[in-house]
Amino acid sequence: MTVDARFGLDRHVRLPGPLPLDGGASLPEIEIAYETYGAPGAAASNAVLVCHALTGDQHLASPHPRTGKPGWWQRVVGPGKPIDTDRNLVICANVLGSCMGSSGPASVDPASGRPYAMRFPVITIRDMVRAQAALLDHLGIARLKAVVGGSMGGMQALEWAATYPDRVEAALVIASSARHSAQNIAFHEVGRQAIMADPNWRNGDYYDGTPPAAGLAVARMAAHITYLSEAGLTEKFGRRLQARDAKSFGFDADFQVESYLRHQGLSFTDRFDANSYLYITRAMDYLDIAEEHGGSLANAFMGMATRFCLISFDSDWLYPTAESRAIVQALNAAGARTSFVELSSPFGHDAFLLENTEMDRVIAGFLASR
Amino acid sequence: MTVDARFGLDRHVRLPGPLPLDGGASLPEIEIAYETYGAPGAAASNAVLVCHALTGDQHLASPHPRTGKPGWWQRVVGPGKPIDTDRNLVICANVLGSCMGSSGPASVDPASGRPYAMRFPVITIRDMVRAQAALLDHLGIARLKAVVGGSMGGMQALEWAATYPDRVEAALVIASSARHSAQNIAFHEVGRQAIMADPNWRNGDYYDGTPPAAGLAVARMAAHITYLSEAGLTEKFGRRLQARDAKSFGFDADFQVESYLRHQGLSFTDRFDANSYLYITRAMDYLDIAEEHGGSLANAFMGMATRFCLISFDSDWLYPTAESRAIVQALNAAGARTSFVELSSPFGHDAFLLENTEMDRVIAGFLASR
Repeated sequence: MTVDARFGLDRHVRLPGPLPLDGGASLPEIEIAYETYGAPGAAASNAVLVCHALTGDQHLASPHPRTGKPGWWQRVVGPGKPIDTDRNLVICANVLGSCMGSSGPASVDPASGRPYAMRFPVITIRDMVRAQAALLDHLGIARLKAVVGGSMGGMQALEWAATYPDRVEAALVIASSARHSAQNIAFHEVGRQAIMADPNWRNGDYYDGTPPAAGLAVARMAAHITYLSEAGLTEKFGRRLQARDAKSFGFDADFQVESYLRHQGLSFTDRFDANSYLYITRAMDYLDIAEEHGGSLANAFMGMATRFCLISFDSDWLYPTAESRAIVQALNAAGARTSFVELSSPFGHDAFLLENTEMDRVIAGFLASR
Repeated sequence: MTVDARFGLDRHVRLPGPLPLDGGASLPEIEIAYETYGAPGAAASNAVLVCHALTGDQHLASPHPRTGKPGWWQRVVGPGKPIDTDRNLVICANVLGSCMGSSGPASVDPASGRPYAMRFPVITIRDMVRAQAALLDHLGIARLKAVVGGSMGGMQALEWAATYPDRVEAALVIASSARHSAQNIAFHEVGRQAIMADPNWRNGDYYDGTPPAAGLAVARMAAHITYLSEAGLTEKFGRRLQARDAKSFGFDADFQVESYLRHQGLSFTDRFDANSYLYITRAMDYLDIAEEHGGSLANAFMGMATRFCLISFDSDWLYPTAESRAIVQALNAAGARTSFVELSSPFGHDAFLLENTEMDRVIAGFLASR
């Protein structure tokens, strides 16, 4: 048996361009960091693409090479697991615009030999999907058995179906939305302004100096609140104080929730690039699949054979059930085969990353049926 | 008729201390900026104290002396209005810790001759109420016909009743809470971290230099989202673009909601002191009236003759109806005379500041009954 170097963990490929982008610009070439799990079947008919969320990465089901932490969906993806790597070739690629090995603002612009920084073109979710399609071409995968994603991953799954309906047999969209609401945009804008307010940001040209870590930490803190539910925060922290067990009457992190948020903010700056945060949040804010199809979301999916499954969580206020329901209504209007379930969880938007046997059952069932 | 200089618009008084504070420190003296409307009745039996919110001021029902804008509750307070200044002496004082003329971190510390900055003691909502009680002593007002407030103003109204039950005939608490939840604390902590991340903050000692305006603007932007409802934001802005009517594929404020938030952030820095923002948010986060009374909110109001009225708004997710309901249950358990209404509004927490004829009717009715 010959080893095909295109498949396996911690892969990296440079694909020739140009890759045309929604904004009118194009990238002369793109790099994609990705991983695959399981073995390609006949004609790659068992390929499942999993798309990651805003700050995710390609280390889906293997330990992160730097931190040693388990892959972000290792609970769901693996031998005998809901996304079964004994049966499927599972692929996960770092999105365009990110900072985990795929092309993004921290990448070197071949034209100048220096990091793109803010000279990287503004991209869309559809552009991310185009880059993934180029990767599948490289892997010799014409058609996906399924594309799966939560949050921004779900947005990509929807864009996959809308952009390449003939390449997508089934799309599984979890805790997601087909467009960013005013409130979604508002939270992202706070994060971007926090980054840009940091003097170390220097219009994005910080790669040879100190990165805008303080601003990025504030951005992460604000976003993190939206990932949790009010009830979840109350259950997890309530008004509990830190170890010293008394109010300091100062500005230290008295409450556990403060300490938790500060930690979330700081640890994020170790692993994420501030400019990537700007670009990816922008891509999400620009998302409005209906707008791309004459104002009708149903038009985006009209007459396609792709099967859909949507999952929402009752405590998710970032992409609430109403957003999934709007997608389901459009899919029904388009005549697409669609199933939909709202699951109960106290954990808000983050629920899709956490233990949820109901979700596991829905994922496994949807992938098993054809 | 002699004019009593203690009453009228744009008043300012320096009260001798020491004012003991919940944190154990005390202030050697306090300054209070306040306004009164209407005339004192016999034995000041018609005094209504209105307490302002986090970023509010004493200019309740008169044009702001600097901006010329109408008072923040001019719609509700005035001759023949729900809080009728023909019948009542209405008082509004800038809270302790603020920056509109009352003592706060920007005030000069008499001990050093320099601004307190972060040497100002951390205060609580109850400390704000103590300062107001000292003002009432100065005005010769032994007892309030009513104390009224929305948001942090409602917290003060509750603390008034809990701390000085014999001085409060009635308390009207609008869109408020008896304690800050984990999510409330989390949002405030994001704002504080945004301010402290601004290098111009310089541990609070910026009064002879450039203030941390960028950090304060980010704090305000994050807070502002919590003042509006998701539906209200969608109705007001949706995904509408700015005048140029096309996505820029850049990082300008493409969406109207972005431009609105940036404006809210920037204009706030003209009128508010960043250190005051730290101190007042801290006071709100520390609020837990039950904790101050052995863990039982009912204990705080046990056996008192004060009448209560609570108003919540169905779209308010900052201090949702459940918080008001918890207060009402405690008041009922304490045997207090209590009325409660949840009003419908699309405007979220901000509803208490906006046109709402139902609210006007409840306020007027509650103040008219005795």
